[in-house]
Amino acid sequence: MTARIISGKEVSAQIYAELGGRIAAFRERHGIVPHLAVVLVGDDPSSQSYVRMKSERCLDLGLGSSVVRLGGLAPEDELLNTLDAINRDDGIHGVLVQLPLPGHIRETRVLQAVDPRKDVDCFHPVNVGRMVMGDPDVLLPCTPHGIQQMLVRSGVRVEGSHVVIVGRSNIVGKPLANILVQKRPGANATVTVCHTRTSDLGAITRTADILVAAAGSPRAITADMVAPGAVVVDVGSNRVDDPSAPRGYRFVGDVDFDAVKEVASAITPVPGGVGPMTVCMLMWNTVEAAWNRLGR
Amino acid sequence: MTARIISGKEVSAQIYAELGGRIAAFRERHGIVPHLAVVLVGDDPSSQSYVRMKSERCLDLGLGSSVVRLGGLAPEDELLNTLDAINRDDGIHGVLVQLPLPGHIRETRVLQAVDPRKDVDCFHPVNVGRMVMGDPDVLLPCTPHGIQQMLVRSGVRVEGSHVVIVGRSNIVGKPLANILVQKRPGANATVTVCHTRTSDLGAITRTADILVAAAGSPRAITADMVAPGAVVVDVGSNRVDDPSAPRGYRFVGDVDFDAVKEVASAITPVPGGVGPMTVCMLMWNTVEAAWNRLGR
Repeated sequence: MTARIISGKEVSAQIYAELGGRIAAFRERHGIVPHLAVVLVGDDPSSQSYVRMKSERCLDLGLGSSVVRLGGLAPEDELLNTLDAINRDDGIHGVLVQLPLPGHIRETRVLQAVDPRKDVDCFHPVNVGRMVMGDPDVLLPCTPHGIQQMLVRSGVRVEGSHVVIVGRSNIVGKPLANILVQKRPGANATVTVCHTRTSDLGAITRTADILVAAAGSPRAITADMVAPGAVVVDVGSNRVDDPSAPRGYRFVGDVDFDAVKEVASAITPVPGGVGPMTVCMLMWNTVEAAWNRLGR
Repeated sequence: MTARIISGKEVSAQIYAELGGRIAAFRERHGIVPHLAVVLVGDDPSSQSYVRMKSERCLDLGLGSSVVRLGGLAPEDELLNTLDAINRDDGIHGVLVQLPLPGHIRETRVLQAVDPRKDVDCFHPVNVGRMVMGDPDVLLPCTPHGIQQMLVRSGVRVEGSHVVIVGRSNIVGKPLANILVQKRPGANATVTVCHTRTSDLGAITRTADILVAAAGSPRAITADMVAPGAVVVDVGSNRVDDPSAPRGYRFVGDVDFDAVKEVASAITPVPGGVGPMTVCMLMWNTVEAAWNRLGR
């Protein structure tokens, strides 16, 4: 039996519909719309495309958005000054710095310079700490939160399940583990984190009820690593050469989709899986940050 | 074959000896000794005994210590004002608030009122976040750090091992998982966190190379839950009635020690295991906080 496809497009469409109502209510209550500022340093093509996608989504939803661009050689202080001005601007409710940053800029220092109340990425350590400690009022990081929403809204039972996460990045693996282990509906899972140093990865992934691949390695998760009936979430987005594709490349996930879908009970595709959820939860956080700031 | 006993008394004695040298060097360099302030609210007998133990240990090592006591009915603001004064006092390098606090005081608010640079417990969310994100300069929380030190200094290989932690408290389970998963010597483990909502706990604990019991449940880990040759760390300290004991009770761990020691390759006892390590790492953090503050 072939796995059910969990579509991030469909789940995010459902959330966008709810968000429309929340934005209308916010405008009604406060006379303005929530506003997101994105700071982009340099001209990396992928980063530019991500930033464009975020702005367009704001436009679609009727949210305000600004993009502040700094040159790739801008000194760290210039970026910190920019963030300081955004932090003090009452018209801006959410802010994010598009990563990665050029090598001469210290990422840790920049992430700590974002006002925690406007930190819609949940990259400021004080928010990471609050998330880990189970503070219910923190804005959750977009990709892990999107994965949780996808699972819950697709009827996958997370509570009591064994979730195995492959990958320990600060953006996906670590925060997802910390979110899903909390004693809370939609979480309350037994969680295992695997990574490059894991011995016998397959032996561990085969114990997963829910397997999350976030290793950044194309098709690393093969069918023999998946227990029959498991739910598989593919966070990977790896560019691979493909002469038959219009641009000479395409994106594949961390999961060998065609083979794994014959073993799993449900699976997220790439593209159209986790990807759309990330931007969706960013929009969600922007609206929440505005409500938190101006009152309900 | 009976398991080797990993003694927290012995490992902490080794660390105390090193710490003696670091304290002497600090005094040489700065003309003062590191100073720890402990704030105690109310008169809970266990808390009083823990606070006394910490002060005595400071005295033994030649560290400065103060204990500030507030009545059990002291308003939250009084505690916050006390912390504010301690934060501003340049003669104090480390501070902790003895937990638990009386019910009318919001613990989250209090933990956030400690100056992060003096936060020797690593309970402030900004420090928890830095720890999770892998910041090498953060002072690690005492019990998890003590467990890591015990393992490493006893020659237990943590890297590449599968560590299963039973319990997800903010003091032990969650921070220990986040410390041991980091890509770093003495860590780099595959980590699983189990808890009350885990289905078939034994099936998971039996996959552990290193099993950490931090569930707060007397003798919950039985011999059939442990793989032959596993290393078992017992964080539990549960008071149980014992008419034959001088005070009518004694403390037992979360592990059924007598049976598990016949299966495990190494095991920490209760008492004399993790317990002494916690106070030891608190002393370590006090000295580190002073070095961080005044310079090396």
